[in-house]
Amino acid sequence: MPFKTLSQKIVWACPWYNVRQDEILLPDGRPGVYNVVQKEAAVWILPVTTEKQVVLIRSYRYTVDDWCWEIPAGSLKAGQEPVEAARAELAEEVGGQAQQLEYLGQSYMANGICDEVGHFFLATGVALGETAHEAAEVIKVHLKPICKVLQMVRANEIHDAPSALVILLCADRLEAMIDKQ
Amino acid sequence: MPFKTLSQKIVWACPWYNVRQDEILLPDGRPGVYNVVQKEAAVWILPVTTEKQVVLIRSYRYTVDDWCWEIPAGSLKAGQEPVEAARAELAEEVGGQAQQLEYLGQSYMANGICDEVGHFFLATGVALGETAHEAAEVIKVHLKPICKVLQMVRANEIHDAPSALVILLCADRLEAMIDKQ
Repeated sequence: MPFKTLSQKIVWACPWYNVRQDEILLPDGRPGVYNVVQKEAAVWILPVTTEKQVVLIRSYRYTVDDWCWEIPAGSLKAGQEPVEAARAELAEEVGGQAQQLEYLGQSYMANGICDEVGHFFLATGVALGETAHEAAEVIKVHLKPICKVLQMVRANEIHDAPSALVILLCADRLEAMIDKQ
Repeated sequence: MPFKTLSQKIVWACPWYNVRQDEILLPDGRPGVYNVVQKEAAVWILPVTTEKQVVLIRSYRYTVDDWCWEIPAGSLKAGQEPVEAARAELAEEVGGQAQQLEYLGQSYMANGICDEVGHFFLATGVALGETAHEAAEVIKVHLKPICKVLQMVRANEIHDAPSALVILLCADRLEAMIDKQ
């Protein structure tokens, strides 16, 4: 790697992430500090029901004091594989059970400051049931036609960046579902 | 808002972001803690040259010890408007000057833990010149045909989530540029 790490220590921690402070040598050889927010990988799941409706959630986010259109998402628990986390979050946040779960790929979510990896899934043939929200989750479940969701994301009405990304990664697949209706 | 904030204090700080710890009452009335990473807004800019080539950067990211395909980006400096930051980052990271800068919209980048807002731009008619990288930036500038970049993003070869989002938000505009060639 172009940087050399001289030391690492955790300078702040909470149950959801740590801040690790590294003493480094920059590529030009000068000393520097790089702070890395260490966070577990997470999953985002775009659910489409058996009736070809997209399941969006309207989520209140304390960090920004705003309501956002989102898709189900959550961090991996210890020992959990992305596909297990995807099935668990789908069940918890919207009460969903998917017939098919397609892996779309992965990305670094905020690689300037954080090591978080996001894993993205398309869930189809989803049947909805009871939800099991956590105390800090303020979520309302909405069903939207596929064409409406594509219009919302292209009009920048989906203000949660990872959710918008996953919807757009699925645009061709979603349009093919409309054509088949 | 569904949460009630009882107190706020900065529990960790560095030049790039702070962690603010809030004592809150959860929507069910029970006490809780919410830690918010406070970060300045940032801009992402998709540059297309006068010759209809997309300017991608190959960037080494210390946080994940990996090289990523990205578009130019950076945080707003004090008092800077998003459009000024976009022009400045375009100049610094790829030596670019744009004839047109189109505002695509904004999103919350990681609203589960962070208050960062991203502002997205499409820069067209870009002429490239000298770059002015910071010491911690390890960046190589590449020119790619529009169709190649659309193929890369759809094949999940762009592993920086915000860059992938901005490219996909511009997909229709980029395809129109190919058609006009």
